[in-house]
Amino acid sequence: MTTEPPLLLALDLAGTFAFALNGALTAVRAVRLDIIGVLTLGMITALGGGVIRDVLIGAVPPATFRDWRYLALALGGGLVAFALSRWLGRLETPIIVFDAIGLSTFAVIGASKALGFGLGIGPAVMLGAVTAVGGGTIRDTLLGRVPTVLRSELYAIPALIGAGLTVAALRFEVYGLAAALGAAAACFVVRMLGVRFNLNAPYPPGTTGT
Amino acid sequence: MTTEPPLLLALDLAGTFAFALNGALTAVRAVRLDIIGVLTLGMITALGGGVIRDVLIGAVPPATFRDWRYLALALGGGLVAFALSRWLGRLETPIIVFDAIGLSTFAVIGASKALGFGLGIGPAVMLGAVTAVGGGTIRDTLLGRVPTVLRSELYAIPALIGAGLTVAALRFEVYGLAAALGAAAACFVVRMLGVRFNLNAPYPPGTTGT
Amino acid sequence: MTTEPPLLLALDLAGTFAFALNGALTAVRAVRLDIIGVLTLGMITALGGGVIRDVLIGAVPPATFRDWRYLALALGGGLVAFALSRWLGRLETPIIVFDAIGLSTFAVIGASKALGFGLGIGPAVMLGAVTAVGGGTIRDTLLGRVPTVLRSELYAIPALIGAGLTVAALRFEVYGLAAALGAAAACFVVRMLGVRFNLNAPYPPGTTGT
Repeated sequence: MTTEPPLLLALDLAGTFAFALNGALTAVRAVRLDIIGVLTLGMITALGGGVIRDVLIGAVPPATFRDWRYLALALGGGLVAFALSRWLGRLETPIIVFDAIGLSTFAVIGASKALGFGLGIGPAVMLGAVTAVGGGTIRDTLLGRVPTVLRSELYAIPALIGAGLTVAALRFEVYGLAAALGAAAACFVVRMLGVRFNLNAPYPPGTTGT
Repeated sequence: MTTEPPLLLALDLAGTFAFALNGALTAVRAVRLDIIGVLTLGMITALGGGVIRDVLIGAVPPATFRDWRYLALALGGGLVAFALSRWLGRLETPIIVFDAIGLSTFAVIGASKALGFGLGIGPAVMLGAVTAVGGGTIRDTLLGRVPTVLRSELYAIPALIGAGLTVAALRFEVYGLAAALGAAAACFVVRMLGVRFNLNAPYPPGTTGT
Repeated sequence: MTTEPPLLLALDLAGTFAFALNGALTAVRAVRLDIIGVLTLGMITALGGGVIRDVLIGAVPPATFRDWRYLALALGGGLVAFALSRWLGRLETPIIVFDAIGLSTFAVIGASKALGFGLGIGPAVMLGAVTAVGGGTIRDTLLGRVPTVLRSELYAIPALIGAGLTVAALRFEVYGLAAALGAAAACFVVRMLGVRFNLNAPYPPGTTGT
């Protein structure tokens, strides 16, 4: 993380906080969980993707365990969501928006870090997407739901777009704060358009999407 | 593991055996599984937490794969549970007690090992708890149940207490067999009190615990 | 992978392709998933076992992320299955056969690689089996099903046989293409016999297998 400009670190931390809010709110809505369950699910959602990424590129212990800010933000996000769950928990919009923020920032940071650890273009894009969807996938699996990444509404595609733009910017040596924010914004916009218009990727021939 | 006194190694091995019994008995009770399913679930419960810990701190191959005693005890515990399932399987108490033993010893060993690999205080406590609850969480997930750690009855809290006491003892340089056993006992007692009196951590405001 | 003869690499790649076909077809049959969900599940099934193996032996980034052929075959297998799902998806046999092929080749390659990384005989056999069943286990877990490896029909046993024969051949220094193919064939035959005659491993005393 030390090679990232400070504002990209801020992006990563913002994504961590957003995912923690999302995970904790999802926990409150989905099943009745006590505070430990809510905080645990918030932390898993926030930290899961980055931990998977770091384990796969061999950057262990994961950044999450070496930089107290990640743990603190993941815990803080869960606590905020727990305290405000009566208000936030009824609204589906904050859950989706927080998730899209985490998805966008993690796709960019994940792809950038993967490339920095020597992965090729294809694997770096894929690892960016894995970073973005990893935490939410663990969250859904623990709650006994088929993960969002499999159920569509354009979830993996925006992550791949964000990661792809990041890798392209790095390869053409135009990567910087503007490029990172642009890649994250592209991911965010595509994701929110998918949610707003209920867009889905194509279904297998002979089946329907309803 | 070589820096641990012999009796702490014994603690770790005892936890492995207890978790294997627990996992295998859970398998027998939860779904009809054949012997391979029962043994597999016993081994996953027994070895999962330690494997996650070792992967996260970079101690690969995990101790589990380098020390035959872990594999043997995990397998042996599963075989014992399989053979005695007709008697043990009907009783909920042994499952809970074996689980609490594994939880306690793994929280202590996990926190101690994490600190030894250079993690900070907060991450070491968290990793101790992850070591303790990891195997059972995988067990529940594979069986399609929301993991105990999320469903409460004070499951994560005793693990955090055991790990926290361990880290405190190490920091104040009073760690030894007595401190390790004390930390494990504290975890065990809190866990069993939680089960006995059906204690739960606080629920989100506006929801009820029933 | 560089120490493997070319035809063993081919075996590994064939297993990857077969597992991708299997995972994608399972996705089409099990739940209505869009193309991203189908491809994701195909890739997870194809690459999951090898990634787990490489993470556990410390060979990170996993071969999957360093050799573009694995990613390409996993993606290609998923695309083929998606395109042909109308025909293949109705048939249960191709799903089972592709799965058995992946199971067989991955058990052999996994055990061979684990031994090459210095694991002992027991752990190498176990890691071979983990490589073989890992991807399918993640596939089933994400789909909310109790994994095949727990539900029997002789799934783990053939993998252990294939891995065991591989380790034996390596220890007696008769390992080569013939031995690898023989071990894989043994695994495949046992698995298919199990499916054909609906064989199961023993059930716990006092319960029945129906």
